[in-house]
Amino acid sequence: MRKSAVRELYMVGTLYVLAAGVLASSAAGADNDLMSAARRIFRPIPSIVPAVKDNPITHEKVTLGKTLFFDPRLSASEVISCNTCHNLGTGGVDAGPTSVGHRWQLGSRRAPTVYNAVFNVAQFWDGRAADLKAQAEGPVQASVEMNATPVHVVDTLNSMAEYIVMFSKAFPSDATPVTFENFAKAIEAFEATLITPAAPFDQYLEGDAYALSDRQKAGLKLFIEKGCSSCHNGINVGGQDYFAFGAVERPAASLLPRNDKGRFAVTKMPSDEYVFRSAPLRNVALRPPYFHSGQVWSLKEAVGVMSETQLGAKLSDTEKDDIVAFLNSLTGQLPKIDYPILPTRTDTTPKPSVHK
Amino acid sequence: MRKSAVRELYMVGTLYVLAAGVLASSAAGADNDLMSAARRIFRPIPSIVPAVKDNPITHEKVTLGKTLFFDPRLSASEVISCNTCHNLGTGGVDAGPTSVGHRWQLGSRRAPTVYNAVFNVAQFWDGRAADLKAQAEGPVQASVEMNATPVHVVDTLNSMAEYIVMFSKAFPSDATPVTFENFAKAIEAFEATLITPAAPFDQYLEGDAYALSDRQKAGLKLFIEKGCSSCHNGINVGGQDYFAFGAVERPAASLLPRNDKGRFAVTKMPSDEYVFRSAPLRNVALRPPYFHSGQVWSLKEAVGVMSETQLGAKLSDTEKDDIVAFLNSLTGQLPKIDYPILPTRTDTTPKPSVHK
Repeated sequence: MRKSAVRELYMVGTLYVLAAGVLASSAAGADNDLMSAARRIFRPIPSIVPAVKDNPITHEKVTLGKTLFFDPRLSASEVISCNTCHNLGTGGVDAGPTSVGHRWQLGSRRAPTVYNAVFNVAQFWDGRAADLKAQAEGPVQASVEMNATPVHVVDTLNSMAEYIVMFSKAFPSDATPVTFENFAKAIEAFEATLITPAAPFDQYLEGDAYALSDRQKAGLKLFIEKGCSSCHNGINVGGQDYFAFGAVERPAASLLPRNDKGRFAVTKMPSDEYVFRSAPLRNVALRPPYFHSGQVWSLKEAVGVMSETQLGAKLSDTEKDDIVAFLNSLTGQLPKIDYPILPTRTDTTPKPSVHK
Repeated sequence: MRKSAVRELYMVGTLYVLAAGVLASSAAGADNDLMSAARRIFRPIPSIVPAVKDNPITHEKVTLGKTLFFDPRLSASEVISCNTCHNLGTGGVDAGPTSVGHRWQLGSRRAPTVYNAVFNVAQFWDGRAADLKAQAEGPVQASVEMNATPVHVVDTLNSMAEYIVMFSKAFPSDATPVTFENFAKAIEAFEATLITPAAPFDQYLEGDAYALSDRQKAGLKLFIEKGCSSCHNGINVGGQDYFAFGAVERPAASLLPRNDKGRFAVTKMPSDEYVFRSAPLRNVALRPPYFHSGQVWSLKEAVGVMSETQLGAKLSDTEKDDIVAFLNSLTGQLPKIDYPILPTRTDTTPKPSVHK
């Protein structure tokens, strides 16, 4: 079944190349054609917070979610918060390659960015969480990450009157507002605000032909024509579907550790062995190292690996530079975050558990 | 020599009690006397950033310092920033009892708060750093904390053009602005802005007799008369001088680990065995657990321990509650912090070193 995934990949790629059309001979015509092609393949990041399924977004919920996102006391050690690994100051990720968690254990995959994550088809590299509220329940419980339990989270929140008030305001119609589910919903609401509009590429998609440099346009053209946009398309320039890493050529074991079979662990379908959600490339320049293994530190090198393993294309140095220039145009405007003052712990707040 | 420290402590205590005067018989007179006494012993936190020796504070330097304060890439693992242990969201400290550092090693003492630290006579529990710039050079190099080197710090900063520009603006007359010394100076400048004015007690010291509740005034009176203010006085209600922990009665070994002899390690004087800088009590309610060992989680319990070990006084339950009420009046207005977007790492930025 892996072959069919590859075939599908090529078909999609071909479609996108066709969509791009044969570029017209005049420079202005070519420019228009490129913009038209780009608009068929990609979508700009909106400047307003998107709606989220089953979770109406309110100011109160976002404020609560931000407070929770930065609260390390929700981890067993009370040292690790969501922001530790999804650092909003460094592109929504940590230094990598993979994350340091409870008792200095190392995670097995690179932390995905929380910026624009709301636009992904599903969460985690293997898509095992349907949405951000499902995602938010994962790391807080993972033994190699925050190593807490829903009971620890709820007990901690209930020990602080200020949190109880915040939950009541965020979930006004709930009889018991402080729950693990609402904790996750509030974080989802906050993360839905972590969108980065107005990148040069967004401005280009919205009709400003001068928003990209000539080199960036050349990179965009290559990105479409070589087939990168077969997998990296849509609003997040990726993150919309699942593809085999190594569709054409198997990457080195350092980049594709053989014991991590990706989406296979979710679906148990042999066709999903070594299949991952395509990486969303929004703000990609802000967050090396790359790939789920986090083993490639240079964006140019990552472009080279991708073109060879996924497309069987050997790009020239200039072509890689052009594509990197285009990828740099995907860096948007990050939201301004007021660092939250957290509710003060009380005598009944669970104590940190550093060693267990 | 330890005895003389105790004697001195009592003398200072007596002086403060004398300064407080015998309280007048009328309620209004007593109120005035209490305020007068308090004004002789304490000083309000100013609402403007204080000057710092040898380090003129500029907006550019503060902005740089804030960025550095939140940058985990300055640690060897690139996971730990100043804010990890001195979390501005939780009173400028971590969850404790002592800090988790590089490779999950535990520090030997409770992280002191950075809020109002600029007003302390010296930094660290043993006063081994004369000021905040000297302090800032410590944890970044300590093997159980950030485990970095000045070379790592300077190489990391020099790898990002944005940092070089920020240093040039912060230190415009320096030929080589990016240095380990300037890194520390910028952090000191930022930390000088971390002051928390306008606590109810500040308003009281500034003449508003209604800023404290009756219970808080009763607590203040006890705080002076019982002798607490012998050591906890001045602008930071502590942090101004060094005293033996266990001046009257030796605390339990759990509170005063016998292998940590405090200021003795700095001065090598036998009289400084188990001597520590008195804890500054500003915002003390925000940051349990207490003492350099971080073993007491309740403020009321901490008041009880202090009164017995330092003053030989056995306080009643009501007296402890009154003092705790007063200590709650020391919680000021925390500055608003915009979470900084950090400069983006480049191909030349040193890689994280998690295991070494």
